Amino acid sequence: MQKNHDHSSQIEDSIRSVISSERVPKGLYEPISYILSIGGKRVRPRLMISVYSIFQPQGVDPKLWAAIRAVEVFHNFTLLHDDLMDQSPVRRAQPTVHKKWNPNTAILSGDAMLIESYRQLQDLTPEDFVQVHREFTKMALEVCEGQQYDMEFEQRNDVSKDEYMEMIRLKTACLIASSMKIAALLGGASENDMERVYQAGAKMGLAFQLRDDFLDIYASESFGKQKGGDILAEKKTWLLLTARELQKQRGECDLEQAFQSTSKEDKIKQVVAVYDRYHMEERVVEEIHTLTTEAIRELELLTSPPSRVRPLIDFIRGLDQRKV
Amino acid sequence: MQKNHDHSSQIEDSIRSVISSERVPKGLYEPISYILSIGGKRVRPRLMISVYSIFQPQGVDPKLWAAIRAVEVFHNFTLLHDDLMDQSPVRRAQPTVHKKWNPNTAILSGDAMLIESYRQLQDLTPEDFVQVHREFTKMALEVCEGQQYDMEFEQRNDVSKDEYMEMIRLKTACLIASSMKIAALLGGASENDMERVYQAGAKMGLAFQLRDDFLDIYASESFGKQKGGDILAEKKTWLLLTARELQKQRGECDLEQAFQSTSKEDKIKQVVAVYDRYHMEERVVEEIHTLTTEAIRELELLTSPPSRVRPLIDFIRGLDQRKV
Repeated sequence: MQKNHDHSSQIEDSIRSVISSERVPKGLYEPISYILSIGGKRVRPRLMISVYSIFQPQGVDPKLWAAIRAVEVFHNFTLLHDDLMDQSPVRRAQPTVHKKWNPNTAILSGDAMLIESYRQLQDLTPEDFVQVHREFTKMALEVCEGQQYDMEFEQRNDVSKDEYMEMIRLKTACLIASSMKIAALLGGASENDMERVYQAGAKMGLAFQLRDDFLDIYASESFGKQKGGDILAEKKTWLLLTARELQKQRGECDLEQAFQSTSKEDKIKQVVAVYDRYHMEERVVEEIHTLTTEAIRELELLTSPPSRVRPLIDFIRGLDQRKV
Repeated sequence: MQKNHDHSSQIEDSIRSVISSERVPKGLYEPISYILSIGGKRVRPRLMISVYSIFQPQGVDPKLWAAIRAVEVFHNFTLLHDDLMDQSPVRRAQPTVHKKWNPNTAILSGDAMLIESYRQLQDLTPEDFVQVHREFTKMALEVCEGQQYDMEFEQRNDVSKDEYMEMIRLKTACLIASSMKIAALLGGASENDMERVYQAGAKMGLAFQLRDDFLDIYASESFGKQKGGDILAEKKTWLLLTARELQKQRGECDLEQAFQSTSKEDKIKQVVAVYDRYHMEERVVEEIHTLTTEAIRELELLTSPPSRVRPLIDFIRGLDQRKV
């Protein structure tokens, strides 16, 4: 069986093939090539290949590549529009599209990317196309719903942890879960196995987002994002909401005080100090680990031979340790 | 055969059914219901019904309604994002979504609308779905390309009339042409007839846009848009580009002088005065009429009995006279 890392250059080639350099107007398509080329970890493509290989161990079929392109183009579309909505200046250590070009370009090139992601699905056989299109579209609306909740939560001070988990389920986890389910579907998995893969992806997706929340503060090195950015934006992350719960139980109020710091550096320092007092680093790592374990348990229930499932489980364990 | 005006309430009912009032988050879906409810002339749905009725005179099938919803949701999505990009405060005498809510809502609800338009297509049979999806997606990218050219032209002073016609073909005419072709396809038209319907739609679409350019200045009454807005935005319209050509031939330069007027009212007055000197109203009406005649000629070549084509031709003639 082929290992995941063997597919890296194929993934890049496939994604590069989405937008040929001849397409005009260049002002529309160059920003799309740009955001697709500045990379990222290609987590979704790699997960899709791992899932597909469980059911089709003899190798990756062109139809999977079509689905991978659709998913990765869609994912990058969401980053493009989210960065604009969040006014983020930097993504993967590069200027975001609305900064490098302008907000209107970010809107329109993003729209074209969303359409392009649907176009990629047309390379599927009609049967697969109909099924994948349903799953893809359901997921795409869920991602929008999640982003809407995310924006609404910024205006609210009474967000519960349950609400937060539902938001990241929609915004982050559904895309990972659906990508993996689509790979299982194209691999010919049974309904039950598809559902297990979906549930595993959903758990993983939650873990993935919590790790993002964690890395915003505890990353050992910068990775192209502003460190402590979530604190400055007063994002309702798992860390903040859990710390608030603990604080309430203990009748304290140091978080509110910490957030009142006037300088940016001071605000980050003060909030992290409170987090440290509440052992937030340990708590979030434990929560991520629990979700990862639940995801793996789902995968262990698949009807496929364990040896075929192993590479995916190893990959997921690796994500649990990711530092960037 | 049913007349077009019999379908008005069915069109509204069908479009209203897209977003049920229960869908949450309301912050995402209410702006979609809003822009879909403030109406418009529903030109595309009405054209689609007329085209479909040529090939299926016994009545409108649910599959056509699915395609109509997809097209009308897509069309309104483009209005929503275009209004944001153009910073237009008013649409159909109502505040635009980014004004009534905010720019981020306009971005995200627009994205969800685009996805929703694809979701509507899922009500088609797999065979129709595959074909309609291809046509729809090709058209959707063309619309984005047209909008990109439109924005680029605002920054350029050397746009030719040919470039302008290509831009409005992409931005406006392709959507009308594809909508009509999709209706023909669902009605079971032959390849040749589909192509004729498409070409007729493309001509009509150009005529439709030129009429918009015309109405911006010569509308007898306001219809919810700022009168002379194209002049103030220095949009390269057919009127401006044709007037420039004439001016060049005559070695004059009064257009440039007119655009240098400092007050808004004065600028509109001065530019219209130049247009009047060049008989622009008469010229644009003639151009619209020529395009309409060409569209009708295409339709007269259809293999269907003329009596079935007649209502569509009458409808197109009506559009040629439209005052709003």
